[in-house]
Amino acid sequence: MKKLKNDTLIRSLLRQPTPYTPVWLMRQAGRYLPEYNLTRKKAGSFLALAKSPALATEVTLQPLNRFNLDAAILFSDILTVPDAMGLGLYFVEGEGPRFERPLRDAAAVAKIVPPDPYGELRYVTDAVSEIRKALDGSVPLIGFAGSPYTLACYMVEGGASADFRTIKSMLYSEPALLHRILEINARSVTDYLNAQIQAGAQAVMIFDTWGGNLSHAAYAEFSLAYIQRIVSELRREYDGARIPSIVFTKGGGTWLEAIAQTGCDAVGLDWTTDIGKARKQIGDRVALQGNLDPAVLHSPTDVIRTQVANVLKSYGPGSGHVFNLGHGIVPSTRPESVQTLVDAVHEFSAPLHA
Amino acid sequence: MKKLKNDTLIRSLLRQPTPYTPVWLMRQAGRYLPEYNLTRKKAGSFLALAKSPALATEVTLQPLNRFNLDAAILFSDILTVPDAMGLGLYFVEGEGPRFERPLRDAAAVAKIVPPDPYGELRYVTDAVSEIRKALDGSVPLIGFAGSPYTLACYMVEGGASADFRTIKSMLYSEPALLHRILEINARSVTDYLNAQIQAGAQAVMIFDTWGGNLSHAAYAEFSLAYIQRIVSELRREYDGARIPSIVFTKGGGTWLEAIAQTGCDAVGLDWTTDIGKARKQIGDRVALQGNLDPAVLHSPTDVIRTQVANVLKSYGPGSGHVFNLGHGIVPSTRPESVQTLVDAVHEFSAPLHA
Repeated sequence: MKKLKNDTLIRSLLRQPTPYTPVWLMRQAGRYLPEYNLTRKKAGSFLALAKSPALATEVTLQPLNRFNLDAAILFSDILTVPDAMGLGLYFVEGEGPRFERPLRDAAAVAKIVPPDPYGELRYVTDAVSEIRKALDGSVPLIGFAGSPYTLACYMVEGGASADFRTIKSMLYSEPALLHRILEINARSVTDYLNAQIQAGAQAVMIFDTWGGNLSHAAYAEFSLAYIQRIVSELRREYDGARIPSIVFTKGGGTWLEAIAQTGCDAVGLDWTTDIGKARKQIGDRVALQGNLDPAVLHSPTDVIRTQVANVLKSYGPGSGHVFNLGHGIVPSTRPESVQTLVDAVHEFSAPLHA
Repeated sequence: MKKLKNDTLIRSLLRQPTPYTPVWLMRQAGRYLPEYNLTRKKAGSFLALAKSPALATEVTLQPLNRFNLDAAILFSDILTVPDAMGLGLYFVEGEGPRFERPLRDAAAVAKIVPPDPYGELRYVTDAVSEIRKALDGSVPLIGFAGSPYTLACYMVEGGASADFRTIKSMLYSEPALLHRILEINARSVTDYLNAQIQAGAQAVMIFDTWGGNLSHAAYAEFSLAYIQRIVSELRREYDGARIPSIVFTKGGGTWLEAIAQTGCDAVGLDWTTDIGKARKQIGDRVALQGNLDPAVLHSPTDVIRTQVANVLKSYGPGSGHVFNLGHGIVPSTRPESVQTLVDAVHEFSAPLHA
């Protein structure tokens, strides 16, 4: 394979020196970009877009054509995995994802098996290959998946939930059944991420969106244990290159020590965490990714620049920081604000790497 | 005033020995109780219920008639304060509170002033007096208010919000304007809580429901600084008795050290925090209140008992713990489950105080 022209993301995730702090943004391909909305319209629906390797490639590249980003991230959805298990993913406009056949009892759980990354999920591995080819070595491609617990939230609740009543009832009352789902999910995500790596993903990220809603004890047992299992089975090298892994639990600020112990290369931080304090805690073992409040992007240029500088200053000089938001870009963000952010990261971080 | 028959709450909040761990529950008077729903129906609306001292007294006492709780908490709403400022509080069924006239610019902010606790908020101080009288020294009465930042969220957004876009835009782009609102709120809450103390509240709690959504730096500047200002101006004694204060920031698990430094007597913990770890961090300075996951109450009896035991065990032996949930009781909770919880706390905690 071709050598990367810009390897700052990979180097930072491995805590190696870089000339500046690399930056990419969660949901950098998405509804805040007019060109994304055009492609989505062309596709007919979000799912049709996600399931077309050609269109997924198109939207993955869109933010890179506008901004000086240091990485691409596969355009897809975390729920492709349970969809491929046969749960029937669909989207209700303005209300988020739903499943036609949620898992509510042992009989339903007995029917699910890990999907074949080259079978039902072939459209994803094909998209990864196509994007990697289109990138032509310019920047690395990040693959991703949802965490086993986060996937289970949607699989059991049947959609997003305000209080996660159904899955928590299962967790407290039928823990063995939830463990069975999580085992299947962990196996599925491991195979899925390793297939993405084989198809061309140069780093992988596990999104644990809902683990932060668990009690500390339940988080360790029902979310982090399965993330750890995945991390330990990920390909750490492919085609002669190290493949770094990133683990992100939204709301996981009090569990950073435990997350760092999973064996991942980098820990994602949401905006509530002090990145300087996090570096003191775990920065000798892992790289850190984050963590600007996405709401900052609704501010004027000078405020965005100041807040970017504050995050960089809080992390401090040296390697091991990948700049990102603390959560995804919201659709109401102006593209010009993203431009301001990306340029400010490069401008302000260079002196920290001198 | 009469001596309290059951002073375990007050003693625990002051880290003095008690024969068992006292327990009360956030939203212990509420929609999970059929008798509450009857009273609410009689009142016609939630606001009519909250604004009638007689009916507020009735619903405050309802859970105490059922369960062996160690405290009563004033039945009211955190939004009485901005309502009394003239913002026009109303409720949309199933969608939560709204304000008719949210604060969006300097002109609107210039018009608000701290409400008179004995004027527009007289119905609250009257309710406190009436409840205190009705309790007849059986258990202490807790008064409460929302934190200045949490109140501002509703005042600026005009209701609940998924991403707090409007207030965060103000925070990042017009911080001086938000500070002006927070100053007025801090003054209002201080006067309001001191009036509740004078009317009979024997402990007070500040609910910071949304501070946990801020970045660590913004939390310190826009939420905790104003909570600290209130705590420093609260009456610490009234009628010969110490009046303990409790500060609760939902999602504030990474900021416990800072919260403990406000001068409050106790820190509330949500269920994501390990109460044993929190005790090691700050238990030499403050009492801890919490922190069972409210979702546990949807489980069978034996699971509730085990999970109660786990929280007590995590805190460990000795004084300084007030048992509570990590957030409010959800309406779908069975009253029998609350009975199980309260009895389990008393049963399992007695040996820890031997």
